[in-house]
Amino acid sequence: MDVRGEEPIDVTAKLRAKPDVNAAMCPSRGVLEHVTSRWGVLVLAVLLSGTHRFSELRRTVGGVSEKMLAQTLQNLERDGFVHRDAHPVIPPRVDYSLTPLGEEAARQVWALARWTEQHLADVLQARETFDAARA
Amino acid sequence: MDVRGEEPIDVTAKLRAKPDVNAAMCPSRGVLEHVTSRWGVLVLAVLLSGTHRFSELRRTVGGVSEKMLAQTLQNLERDGFVHRDAHPVIPPRVDYSLTPLGEEAARQVWALARWTEQHLADVLQARETFDAARA
Repeated sequence: MDVRGEEPIDVTAKLRAKPDVNAAMCPSRGVLEHVTSRWGVLVLAVLLSGTHRFSELRRTVGGVSEKMLAQTLQNLERDGFVHRDAHPVIPPRVDYSLTPLGEEAARQVWALARWTEQHLADVLQARETFDAARA
Repeated sequence: MDVRGEEPIDVTAKLRAKPDVNAAMCPSRGVLEHVTSRWGVLVLAVLLSGTHRFSELRRTVGGVSEKMLAQTLQNLERDGFVHRDAHPVIPPRVDYSLTPLGEEAARQVWALARWTEQHLADVLQARETFDAARA
């Protein structure tokens, strides 16, 4: 107990078991889902190129709604992957950038996104073959 | 037109524009979503250790329903990442394994899953800090 009569924060207490994404209740699964979410992947990959404002992110990541982008950024900020910098100016300006931890995650999802783009023709050919065999 | 009076399959016709996951209508985004989907990540990572039967996958990937596992495997098979081998035996037996293309994708998501497990303590600490600052 600390002076406020509360249990002290003990992160390691949540980690008595070895983290395992295959375990349904392991919190690592939620982290992996934030990093690999539809918009999480794209936002991390874009931020690898440097600091962006909210409006820039929204323009770059095609099709994302304001609400989904805000939610995605907040999840990534809370997980320690994204740093949010609100400048006390008029009009308000908020910059988003990667933390060192976020940069490690972003490098990996960036590579996966580029790999997907490079192999799109193979995947589309596989789909044609699959659909033809079913028809 | 071919002899059946149909347009010949021309995968490249779908790729006139350079694939770009940031473009809302680019098909590469759907492929990336299959690879990074909640269950897609985990199924690919498990298959990296070798061929698995449906029931083995279901046991290994904690919390996945039969329906979601079947849908995930079918998406990955159609995209050319997973090979499905149905043996004509009684009782029926179906084996799933990675194709060479799937193995490339799986190595990347496996690395991301392991990275997430290894950095879980950092993320949980970041969440404590974030929540404390908001409280």
